[in-house]
Amino acid sequence: MDQALEKRIRASFETQAMMQTFGAEVVSVLQGEVVLRAPILPLALQHTGHGHAALTFALGDTAAGFAAATYLPEDAAVVTAEIKINLLAPAAGDHLIATGRVIKPGRRLIVVTATVAAYTDGVARDVAILQGTMVGT
Amino acid sequence: MDQALEKRIRASFETQAMMQTFGAEVVSVLQGEVVLRAPILPLALQHTGHGHAALTFALGDTAAGFAAATYLPEDAAVVTAEIKINLLAPAAGDHLIATGRVIKPGRRLIVVTATVAAYTDGVARDVAILQGTMVGT
Amino acid sequence: MDQALEKRIRASFETQAMMQTFGAEVVSVLQGEVVLRAPILPLALQHTGHGHAALTFALGDTAAGFAAATYLPEDAAVVTAEIKINLLAPAAGDHLIATGRVIKPGRRLIVVTATVAAYTDGVARDVAILQGTMVGT
Amino acid sequence: MDQALEKRIRASFETQAMMQTFGAEVVSVLQGEVVLRAPILPLALQHTGHGHAALTFALGDTAAGFAAATYLPEDAAVVTAEIKINLLAPAAGDHLIATGRVIKPGRRLIVVTATVAAYTDGVARDVAILQGTMVGT
Repeated sequence: MDQALEKRIRASFETQAMMQTFGAEVVSVLQGEVVLRAPILPLALQHTGHGHAALTFALGDTAAGFAAATYLPEDAAVVTAEIKINLLAPAAGDHLIATGRVIKPGRRLIVVTATVAAYTDGVARDVAILQGTMVGT
Repeated sequence: MDQALEKRIRASFETQAMMQTFGAEVVSVLQGEVVLRAPILPLALQHTGHGHAALTFALGDTAAGFAAATYLPEDAAVVTAEIKINLLAPAAGDHLIATGRVIKPGRRLIVVTATVAAYTDGVARDVAILQGTMVGT
Repeated sequence: MDQALEKRIRASFETQAMMQTFGAEVVSVLQGEVVLRAPILPLALQHTGHGHAALTFALGDTAAGFAAATYLPEDAAVVTAEIKINLLAPAAGDHLIATGRVIKPGRRLIVVTATVAAYTDGVARDVAILQGTMVGT
Repeated sequence: MDQALEKRIRASFETQAMMQTFGAEVVSVLQGEVVLRAPILPLALQHTGHGHAALTFALGDTAAGFAAATYLPEDAAVVTAEIKINLLAPAAGDHLIATGRVIKPGRRLIVVTATVAAYTDGVARDVAILQGTMVGT
């Protein structure tokens, strides 16, 4: 475990107002893997009464972005170049867990994936998978 | 112009709490094309100080989803099966405009695209393009 | 092991002229997972002297499509609705191995992923990951 | 019209064995837009009797890649970082036309789109749209 790395990622996470809006928090930070958790707040619902696709996207994209950041120097910023989401099930339940992973770290382009699962009474159900490219600047 | 269509889309839009959270509004509704507008609120920023990728995604995805809905019966709900976003520039400026379009309407699968532009002092800059698949249920 | 399933997939594979053009063969068939292998033939090269992105795509897409087919009735045909490929490294080496997997089987839409690796002297290197949606007809 | 540019793109196209395998040719070259044409050869069919998704992909991806190349120095090579294809209709007809366009040229990353249409007796039908990222090296 790398405490300096985790501290850095958590500090960067705190600067993302969007994550605070969604009530998201960092669950764990490893080299190449970051896990986030968030409730499904009323403010983030869509017309079907479930979490909006953009909530699921926000968590998956951000987890993947921070996973990429674990491979970059401390002063680098990561932004999403592109990312694709396949939605598997409605975002319904007690909370969402997003796991971002680095598939291929590069000097500038970092290929990432993420999975987002919904938990209901401790039981997980995958709601989305993402695949994308992060850029370090 | 189809006033019944526009009224239906606007009514559905109002049920999306996420859109209200972002301060988004419907600009126009045509068969196969829906335009949305939203400010870049402090609650939707990312670590770079610009709008979060998920804000841009939310508007593009929702505009595309409602564009798909214009091809479906009144009682059908549209959900995103998958969508991909390429980010072209930071989401900075006075407000964002998202234009969703239907490329191919189908009985169940509707292929869509969207563009999202940021406006500063009336000047537009494209910030993202999206390409995806909506499903009517 | 399900010999009837494997026999069915192999028979369908033989009807794909494109796969024969690339010299591809079926390595293994399991419920929800199909593995293909192909050489990197001179006829499939791109301007960099490596296998064309379309060769890597062809194998990954086809492996994923047949993985989806393992969940469908014998008389159903599977076609790709959409698929995205992230290329990780040049397609160089002795041969390529593509592994297609079903992430979520559905009544009509089947979400899939695939990985494609290049082997050189028995050593594997990932060259691409894919994520997509297959449709049964 | 830039004859030097067109000559350069055509010379690079000739080095792509895969394009020759598919019988493809360059129709036109403009700054930021390249059009390719190819027959639907028996060697490129899939199990449904139509052109394989990989044929449509090959043309769209290559047209987009060469469109990106029109923005790069003569000695640079372009490779696909990632690209996504949505298939709209079977690849059936007399021939395919792929049009690749640059959406945003960058120093290293170039965002592109492509459309692929099938022509039957002079009537066009869109068969696919693509959206991706090219990298200059």
